[in-house]
Amino acid sequence: MLKNRYFYAILALVLVVLGVVIIFKFTSVSNEIHANEVLGTTAEVNSNIADNVKDQCASLTQELIDEIKAYQPLVHEIANAIVAGKYSGDTWNALAEMTDKFGGRMSGSKSLENAIDYMVDEMKKAGLDNVHTENATVPHWERGYENCQMLTPRWTKINIIGLGSSVGTIRGGLFADVVVVESFEEFDKLTEATVRGKIVLFVPEWQGYSKTMQYRSQAASVASKKGAVAALVRSITPYSIASLHTGSQKYSNDVKNKIPVAAVTVEDAYMMLRMYRRGQKITLHLEMDDTNLEDFVSRNTIAELAGERKAPVVVVSGHLDSWDVGVGAMDDGGGAFIAWKALHLLKRLNLKPKRTIRAILWTAEEQGLHGAKAYEREHKPHEREEFNFFIESDVGTFTPLGLQFKGNKEAECIFKEVLKLMSPLNATEFDTEFMGPDISLWVNRGFPGASLFNKNEKYFYYHHSVGDSMLVENPDDLDKNTALFAAAAYVIADLSVDMPKDIKD
Amino acid sequence: MLKNRYFYAILALVLVVLGVVIIFKFTSVSNEIHANEVLGTTAEVNSNIADNVKDQCASLTQELIDEIKAYQPLVHEIANAIVAGKYSGDTWNALAEMTDKFGGRMSGSKSLENAIDYMVDEMKKAGLDNVHTENATVPHWERGYENCQMLTPRWTKINIIGLGSSVGTIRGGLFADVVVVESFEEFDKLTEATVRGKIVLFVPEWQGYSKTMQYRSQAASVASKKGAVAALVRSITPYSIASLHTGSQKYSNDVKNKIPVAAVTVEDAYMMLRMYRRGQKITLHLEMDDTNLEDFVSRNTIAELAGERKAPVVVVSGHLDSWDVGVGAMDDGGGAFIAWKALHLLKRLNLKPKRTIRAILWTAEEQGLHGAKAYEREHKPHEREEFNFFIESDVGTFTPLGLQFKGNKEAECIFKEVLKLMSPLNATEFDTEFMGPDISLWVNRGFPGASLFNKNEKYFYYHHSVGDSMLVENPDDLDKNTALFAAAAYVIADLSVDMPKDIKD
Repeated sequence: MLKNRYFYAILALVLVVLGVVIIFKFTSVSNEIHANEVLGTTAEVNSNIADNVKDQCASLTQELIDEIKAYQPLVHEIANAIVAGKYSGDTWNALAEMTDKFGGRMSGSKSLENAIDYMVDEMKKAGLDNVHTENATVPHWERGYENCQMLTPRWTKINIIGLGSSVGTIRGGLFADVVVVESFEEFDKLTEATVRGKIVLFVPEWQGYSKTMQYRSQAASVASKKGAVAALVRSITPYSIASLHTGSQKYSNDVKNKIPVAAVTVEDAYMMLRMYRRGQKITLHLEMDDTNLEDFVSRNTIAELAGERKAPVVVVSGHLDSWDVGVGAMDDGGGAFIAWKALHLLKRLNLKPKRTIRAILWTAEEQGLHGAKAYEREHKPHEREEFNFFIESDVGTFTPLGLQFKGNKEAECIFKEVLKLMSPLNATEFDTEFMGPDISLWVNRGFPGASLFNKNEKYFYYHHSVGDSMLVENPDDLDKNTALFAAAAYVIADLSVDMPKDIKD
Repeated sequence: MLKNRYFYAILALVLVVLGVVIIFKFTSVSNEIHANEVLGTTAEVNSNIADNVKDQCASLTQELIDEIKAYQPLVHEIANAIVAGKYSGDTWNALAEMTDKFGGRMSGSKSLENAIDYMVDEMKKAGLDNVHTENATVPHWERGYENCQMLTPRWTKINIIGLGSSVGTIRGGLFADVVVVESFEEFDKLTEATVRGKIVLFVPEWQGYSKTMQYRSQAASVASKKGAVAALVRSITPYSIASLHTGSQKYSNDVKNKIPVAAVTVEDAYMMLRMYRRGQKITLHLEMDDTNLEDFVSRNTIAELAGERKAPVVVVSGHLDSWDVGVGAMDDGGGAFIAWKALHLLKRLNLKPKRTIRAILWTAEEQGLHGAKAYEREHKPHEREEFNFFIESDVGTFTPLGLQFKGNKEAECIFKEVLKLMSPLNATEFDTEFMGPDISLWVNRGFPGASLFNKNEKYFYYHHSVGDSMLVENPDDLDKNTALFAAAAYVIADLSVDMPKDIKD
């Protein structure tokens, strides 16, 4: 018996080792081929690739492919300068200085306007061209004193955070019982008599951001229609350490009575759900001194790396505004900084592309893309001639994977060749889930654009919360993202051809 | 070239598959043997095992080994009843009801005393024996209004949480500049002139709990000796979403001037460290209305599953008190509930062990094991005859892995045989890092004891914070832990022999 066991064990071991050795050899061969592909030195391999691309990309000429490949040494230079070189750590340090100095930068706040002034100075100090701001009218919502306590079934503080554009309660707050539902469908089944005069708490399961956030944006409107006096919603996050997540909400046009709305922690939401399911009466005292003030003139912040010719430009962007809680290092300090630092890095490397590269730090994205909308309106008359390509980062600046793209097939073929150059940054993945909220104003109309594709699995842990801090940002990742934006923007701006577009108006 | 690659790939694949098939066959054989071992039906295998054990465990007789093995069907029954059976989910639901009802249960608070009364009722309703409480004098520290704002270099709220036993500030708070250090060593190098009149902020790196928490417990004493007016410390956690973690602190006996001390978030701690390193002047306004009131008589909560004879008993325990923030579902509601629910489960299964099993829900563990200390003093005169074995859970009730043990070699040999029975719960791992703070009062003096060994990698994410909620607890894991405590306590209480001990006084 034992002899048998040893025999089998040794036989198995020998076979597996042999197999693994062969796989290892096989993989090494693959790697060499990959390296050759990237550097474009093996004719045989090159022609294979070209064949593949031609299948889908008939319009892509071998000349253009070769032209793009020729940028590989330059991408190496850009990557080396920041990831291993003397500019390493620069983006993180600059972002830390800005966020430490101004903290949260909410639309309509003094700290956002001060941060805009500071960024103009920084961009000028960096020697960038045409540094200026362009006005944008933005909402001005102010968070006041916010407080909530549970009175029955037991006294306890319920931590809340008002949602952007929420009205306040009456002075002294309101006292009301709570109705708890897990979905809009469940709410639909409730009678008006059940809801009238109550606070409605929505406790949807996390079903991804775009689905779950509907509860945040619609809770007040939905609850108000059946006579609720206020709405609460679980914080929109897949993971919680009792963190509160704010965000925008919108009263729909048919709402007659605007009611206050706030987020509670996932922990408290589920506690109240359990109490409600047990038949316990839940009474809250809710006080919110939040107010919508008059619109405010804020500014988009703009700097350029002047090309040999002015237009059409490549835009690299992120938004400078954030929510008031946390310091907006992730949303979207990181995005704004890799965008403008990409220009700073190219400037330091004395690189001058054919077309101008323009960094735009959008204002008031959080309350509804107000900066981008104003910019779009202003530039619309000459947009076809003005813009070549749009780039944005607004879903985190964690370890880069590649770029997300939206545009026509011709542009995609060129873009894919450019993306291959990003191998020194380990960021060659092509993704079609384009995530650039500000630039979507152009990209959804047929301008080609790209957004950062990064390892952002934990993005919503920190999103719109006091946890959005410099701890979330990693210096190495920020360097790589800056280099990725610099390299991609430079190559696209420097190509012999404009990026193809199909514009719908 | 290509042909070569395919040949290697196919050869490798064939060899690996062959190897894996053989390993699989070999493993199946092993599993059968393992099952036989556990059930004790293969004489040949049994004698091998006995030989192994005898090497280290000469005192362990084959009769005792066989006696322990005979409990395997019973452990199966216990596991089935709770994990798959009609009591499934019971521990989680009961814990949710208690924590929803009372919230945080701090030493000296009304909510702790009410929770104790409630537990007495629950234990009586469960039909347990000898349900009663035993008095323990405990500290009564109260958290008052706590507030901190940074005045320079910019105004911002700094979230703080006072540490247990901290004194308050003068009314209206204190205004002082901040000195930031990363370690006690760095603090030692500062002159008294640098520190006098300042607030000292300690920002140690996370180096594991036992090392990092020294900063929490000693910050005030260390800073006070050089004339600081208050101390702050980064929250003691390896991961943060801007969470505040409280905990106990102690003024050392030679401290002449007790100063207030609080934790700040890791995020704010590092922000202030960066500001300080840049040479920026940091001024804070710190107000804490925390007070130490007169000692208070609280109670340990006790219930028994009466055995055929009263003594020596097997103790299963956790502490019922918690900090005031969060609801203490993890620390240590989970521990307390798997302990008493183990007795409840055995009772429902109509199991009556030879020795009595005693559940103890300690009071006032958090402020320094006060409940356990009082109990130890009271029971000292007859402790040798009274106690057979101690079990505790106080480092989370996540997925169980096994049990941690401390005791003499003879007891360890018996314990390891008992642990093997826990295979239906996937919890057979033996670990020597014993973690039972309350029962360590006995175990460190030579009584044998065990603590829950569980997958608690995220324990300190929630520890002593508002994030300590029912979201951290998983119904399946709680069931398994209850079953593990029930099975281990029952077998040890039912053995023909007492657990060996070497008591030092």
